[in-house]
Amino acid sequence: MAKTPQEQLRAYLKDAHALEQMSLQMTQTAAKASKDSELRQLFEHHHEETQEHERLIRQRIEAHGDSTSTIKDIGARVAAMAKGMAATLPPDTPGRLVRDGYVQEHTEIASYELLERVATQAGDSETADVARRIRENERETAEKLAGTWDRAAQLSLSTTPG
Amino acid sequence: MAKTPQEQLRAYLKDAHALEQMSLQMTQTAAKASKDSELRQLFEHHHEETQEHERLIRQRIEAHGDSTSTIKDIGARVAAMAKGMAATLPPDTPGRLVRDGYVQEHTEIASYELLERVATQAGDSETADVARRIRENERETAEKLAGTWDRAAQLSLSTTPG
Repeated sequence: MAKTPQEQLRAYLKDAHALEQMSLQMTQTAAKASKDSELRQLFEHHHEETQEHERLIRQRIEAHGDSTSTIKDIGARVAAMAKGMAATLPPDTPGRLVRDGYVQEHTEIASYELLERVATQAGDSETADVARRIRENERETAEKLAGTWDRAAQLSLSTTPG
Repeated sequence: MAKTPQEQLRAYLKDAHALEQMSLQMTQTAAKASKDSELRQLFEHHHEETQEHERLIRQRIEAHGDSTSTIKDIGARVAAMAKGMAATLPPDTPGRLVRDGYVQEHTEIASYELLERVATQAGDSETADVARRIRENERETAEKLAGTWDRAAQLSLSTTPG
């Protein structure tokens, strides 16, 4: 059964909010686990940016009459997803931290690509604009992470965690 | 405790093999779930390419004296990861299928970026070469998927699944 654009938009907004909550957890965990100052600063910086993204998406959810209290149930799904993403690669290595971050960024990029389109179809240009702005930041962050493959691989061979 | 480059390389190879196994499952599932012929063909085509990737990585694992029988335990981790990735977004929509595929491709891109470097450090230029070749294909596939955001969002609004 097809959903209305409005219903679809609300589902995608909740999904984006779940991903931002997950990103808040991941960037904090990764910053703490990073002994290497360059990686730590990258994760700390993106943690701050993610706080802003979470706020922007929460505002759009509220603009559609939903409240953050109705998205509590997402916590368990976020935990399951985090557990799933942690399922491969040797743990506690800088390589793993950077890879998880890179995957998380691309999960968000994909979600915001879709959210922007669904919002446009639902006539919500404000959400479409927010999606575009956040996506650009996620893409920049993914590029920063991709600039650390050499360092991450090198650090993974020397000490744990990096 | 630092691992030797050899130990690290074997761990990354097993990880790459787990991801290829997961990709085999995902591309097959996504092809079956896609009513839209363009999306179905994209997933079917990449399923065939993935069979070749799995074979190439298995050969490198065997070249290091490991056998595929020693990586049986990865099945449970792959299942956990698949379950985790399925944790968000409305299920059974073309948007979800494309997003999951896009995320899977970037997980593999990240893994092959690291595998190439770890293999080089371990003096295994053959594995480094395989990693580079597969990564290029994963990147092309990610770009093809990224070319379907409009279509996926549109299909998600009309019928399920697409």
